[in-house]
Amino acid sequence: MSERPAAKRVAIIGMGLIGGSLARVLQAHSDVGHVAGCVETDADAALARELGLADSVTTNPLEAAAGADIVVLAVGIDAMGPVCARLGGALGPDTVVTDVGSTKAGVIADVRSQLGDHVMTRFVPGHPIAGTENSGLRAGFQGLFAGRRAILTPLDETDPAALARVEQLWRAAGAHVSLMDPAHHDQVLAATSHLPHLLAFALVDTLAAMAERTEIFEYAAGGFADFTRIASSDPALWTRIMFANRREIMPVLDQYIIKLNDLRDSLENQDESTVRQSFTRAKDARDRFTERLDTSGQA
Amino acid sequence: MSERPAAKRVAIIGMGLIGGSLARVLQAHSDVGHVAGCVETDADAALARELGLADSVTTNPLEAAAGADIVVLAVGIDAMGPVCARLGGALGPDTVVTDVGSTKAGVIADVRSQLGDHVMTRFVPGHPIAGTENSGLRAGFQGLFAGRRAILTPLDETDPAALARVEQLWRAAGAHVSLMDPAHHDQVLAATSHLPHLLAFALVDTLAAMAERTEIFEYAAGGFADFTRIASSDPALWTRIMFANRREIMPVLDQYIIKLNDLRDSLENQDESTVRQSFTRAKDARDRFTERLDTSGQA
Repeated sequence: MSERPAAKRVAIIGMGLIGGSLARVLQAHSDVGHVAGCVETDADAALARELGLADSVTTNPLEAAAGADIVVLAVGIDAMGPVCARLGGALGPDTVVTDVGSTKAGVIADVRSQLGDHVMTRFVPGHPIAGTENSGLRAGFQGLFAGRRAILTPLDETDPAALARVEQLWRAAGAHVSLMDPAHHDQVLAATSHLPHLLAFALVDTLAAMAERTEIFEYAAGGFADFTRIASSDPALWTRIMFANRREIMPVLDQYIIKLNDLRDSLENQDESTVRQSFTRAKDARDRFTERLDTSGQA
Repeated sequence: MSERPAAKRVAIIGMGLIGGSLARVLQAHSDVGHVAGCVETDADAALARELGLADSVTTNPLEAAAGADIVVLAVGIDAMGPVCARLGGALGPDTVVTDVGSTKAGVIADVRSQLGDHVMTRFVPGHPIAGTENSGLRAGFQGLFAGRRAILTPLDETDPAALARVEQLWRAAGAHVSLMDPAHHDQVLAATSHLPHLLAFALVDTLAAMAERTEIFEYAAGGFADFTRIASSDPALWTRIMFANRREIMPVLDQYIIKLNDLRDSLENQDESTVRQSFTRAKDARDRFTERLDTSGQA
């Protein structure tokens, strides 16, 4: 890194898949002097220390955030507000705050209401587009963000210097930084992440209710395993995401249900050309998408 | 292999992903003396020879099948009947016929109508549960079937000796053989393969129609790439599969649409517990399924 360091001390509140992976990669980064981690329970703190997730681990967000240049809120989206309520007093006048929440409008409102308008100049909402179906303290790994996108959604009042520091943080983690309007982020993620998770959960739940379910899963091929991988994600976390972003998810879900009903009617009416055209459009779009992934190294 | 050889000469009609992969693995198998491949065009024959897909390559199914102990029908499900119509006279009195079609009821009817009831004692309908999103002569590879299931769906009149030979063939290819009733095969595959393909095509087609489609695909994460991988499959092939098995697909699709509408209403009505329960059931079922895959080496 030839850039100036993003931070001497980074506090990461929450050490699940995202927070834990960020802590690991920043610890390995010579420009970050100290990674302070915060978890919920004493048992988690002991495990986090055993795993070497951070230079220091505490269950007290105030302690983790004390003296930090950047505080990363890496808790579930419902916990962002409560954590900020506890954090308020510990933030220095120059401390930059960022988060990793999967939805942005709700988190921004929660942070604003707890930290106050005057902190918003130093708040840089963010969302790394990376994940696996695993969760918990053991789920993180150093390379999670390598070559992935980190979307930052600065507010109108966000200080450009604060934005620059968070951009540097994600570059240090190996991510490509993109900027986006918060509302637009929520629309795009509804379509590419939230809806697919809902569809995968719904498919496995539907099949699990069928009489032949044992055999169904036994004879499932690799395509099924891939298609439903995201249905092994944390159900509580994803329920919260669905409701936090339901206003953006519902219109895309409605479009999808219309499409399924069209295909269903085409099957019933032996209308092969409608089905073939739909499948062909999909393959063309997906092949173009994977070509771009291949060239950008994100596949 | 300590078993007696499945065949001295195997004819494989159609050398796409499945036929080409089977030809490659059988060529590498010392007990199979000659793999005869059949493709549609002279250009494909030249390419198949260049790729070394088979010991001999022809565009004439009669030539490939002449003297074969086993004839493997590895063409698209719509081409099974027409190929059998051409093959009829070339089959020796002991030649075993099998196929690799993704649906069984339709293929069985087509083969019966073209080859006649008297050949049905030597017909062993089959379906290897293996695949990738790729198709064509270049798509095959030797390890495609390793550790995968090959489902065989013998008819009431199928000769046990013919079944045994086809079982040996698939074991030689590295697959685990399962036996199943043809109608039940079509039900199980409707749920685990055909419906997921339809859902993935439908999702990508829905998103491709949205105004922000460029961005949508640009910011799609790894989960989206996995979820939609099967939407890069051959649209014409999968359209034919949907219609060949629509009687089994439609009831599961109907159940799925009901589930989506339920989830949609739960989102609208702020009914978090219904969504969480559905997601939780799905994760539990899928985790049990992947545990089984892990222990059987099929993941």
